[in-house]
Amino acid sequence: MSIIDSHSHVKQGAQEHFKRLQDDICRAVETIDGKETFTEDHWSHPTAGGGRARMLQDGAIFEKAGVNFSAVAAPLSENLATRLSVPLQNIFATGISLVMHPCSPMVPTVHMNLRYLELADGNAWFGGGADLTPYYLFPEDAQHFHAVWKAICDKYDSSWYPRFKKSCDEYFFISHRKEARGVGGIFFDYLKGDLDQLLEFVQDVGHGILESYIPIVERRRHEPWGEREKEWQKIRRGRYVEFNLIYDRGTLFGLETEGRTESILMSLPPEVKWPYDYRPEAGTREEALVTILQHPREWV
Amino acid sequence: MSIIDSHSHVKQGAQEHFKRLQDDICRAVETIDGKETFTEDHWSHPTAGGGRARMLQDGAIFEKAGVNFSAVAAPLSENLATRLSVPLQNIFATGISLVMHPCSPMVPTVHMNLRYLELADGNAWFGGGADLTPYYLFPEDAQHFHAVWKAICDKYDSSWYPRFKKSCDEYFFISHRKEARGVGGIFFDYLKGDLDQLLEFVQDVGHGILESYIPIVERRRHEPWGEREKEWQKIRRGRYVEFNLIYDRGTLFGLETEGRTESILMSLPPEVKWPYDYRPEAGTREEALVTILQHPREWV
Repeated sequence: MSIIDSHSHVKQGAQEHFKRLQDDICRAVETIDGKETFTEDHWSHPTAGGGRARMLQDGAIFEKAGVNFSAVAAPLSENLATRLSVPLQNIFATGISLVMHPCSPMVPTVHMNLRYLELADGNAWFGGGADLTPYYLFPEDAQHFHAVWKAICDKYDSSWYPRFKKSCDEYFFISHRKEARGVGGIFFDYLKGDLDQLLEFVQDVGHGILESYIPIVERRRHEPWGEREKEWQKIRRGRYVEFNLIYDRGTLFGLETEGRTESILMSLPPEVKWPYDYRPEAGTREEALVTILQHPREWV
Repeated sequence: MSIIDSHSHVKQGAQEHFKRLQDDICRAVETIDGKETFTEDHWSHPTAGGGRARMLQDGAIFEKAGVNFSAVAAPLSENLATRLSVPLQNIFATGISLVMHPCSPMVPTVHMNLRYLELADGNAWFGGGADLTPYYLFPEDAQHFHAVWKAICDKYDSSWYPRFKKSCDEYFFISHRKEARGVGGIFFDYLKGDLDQLLEFVQDVGHGILESYIPIVERRRHEPWGEREKEWQKIRRGRYVEFNLIYDRGTLFGLETEGRTESILMSLPPEVKWPYDYRPEAGTREEALVTILQHPREWV
């Protein structure tokens, strides 16, 4: 699909960047996976624009990995206009979303989303974030993940990492389970100001996903695991589904506004279990993970 | 758990009925399953009352079957008061909920919920319904299921079945998939009037679940199936999860009001798959099911 033409260089720049980023990330994921490659689907939005959805399934490392680019122009819904406290008008939105569900329960799931929104009245902002969801906790992995985000944020504003880290903990929280989805990362929204500089920041975050995640995959891919660990991964993936379908604003917004269902729900894990009232035994590694999720901590 | 004492005989009667009904249904399910029995959990609500949760897992016929009774008194939340257009006050709610997920993809999943709500100001009503979710369509099963509900409704008011059938089709609709959750049944809410008569109706509906569902189980339990059919069942169960977590008012209301999470989410299937953009091949029985779900029809 072609990008939406624009006189606004940020609008143009963001689209071009997100598309290139999708290419770069997919190439890196295919290289490390070594077995499967991405398939591609192009789709059109009912009003204007559309997306390029990429999916890799049943790889050597990734059971299900989706990396989606989209650029859409549409009238603002009344709901969204109210939430944004702006009059009804057209909105332009472009973004990239990725979720990687690895086969091995020793390799964490990762999610990243970056987006640029521009109203017809000129109001514009960036949003996005990245977070890590381990099934077994290796504290050095969480530390590495957070250190990458802190270094990127610190290049721009030393107040950003603490603020975005806190927003991430608050956002990716499963209220009805009283636990976090994972060990967090960064989350930001309505980031306004010098759009050129913000686009640079968002570009850094985009490439940061490789630096933050791929070394963890390399480190854990040969970690041994068996049926017990796979079972636990499937149960924890149930929490991921609960979060995405009950709380995730992006998911619910996408479904409400008739986005492409299969692209929005690419975030759902390939195989999930919901046994009744499952609780890990005391003193196990499974219990240790849950304890950490109930008490989000500082990692760097 | 003991029931909440009350001078209102309907309040008392509804609780007693729902508890007895839970006993009757569990006994019938255990008898037909023949392998596993229900475990029982008692829980207390933060304000007053609580529930008796019963779960059967890994049976010969049922992979996961939950039958829950609860009776709770609590202050109305602002949200709910607004939705009901009533002033803030205490609300009493008692009900029974069941969801049965069979092992065999040839046996449909069934759901039933019955509830009685009473406000401190005396305003009171019944709600509930039952619906069937097949993985493979046997039209005579859908016909039998609907015929039972029609007969029960017709005993009270001949306008009820058509009305409740339509409400069911509207309620159990997965908008983002543009398909129904299953072949429907009946659904009613805010049923007010002669409460004694309505309690009788609700009692009939409660026992109707055995008459409507057990013969279908008996009929389909020996139907052959293999890996392909099991796979399809797991994919379709994904739709069940999507409905319950995104749209089901009872689920979202329960989670918001800090009901017992494991009792509310007992409705989630034991094992689920989300392959990317899966579409059944043309001319298959899987495709035939989807076609029916996209075009709800009259069964009796």
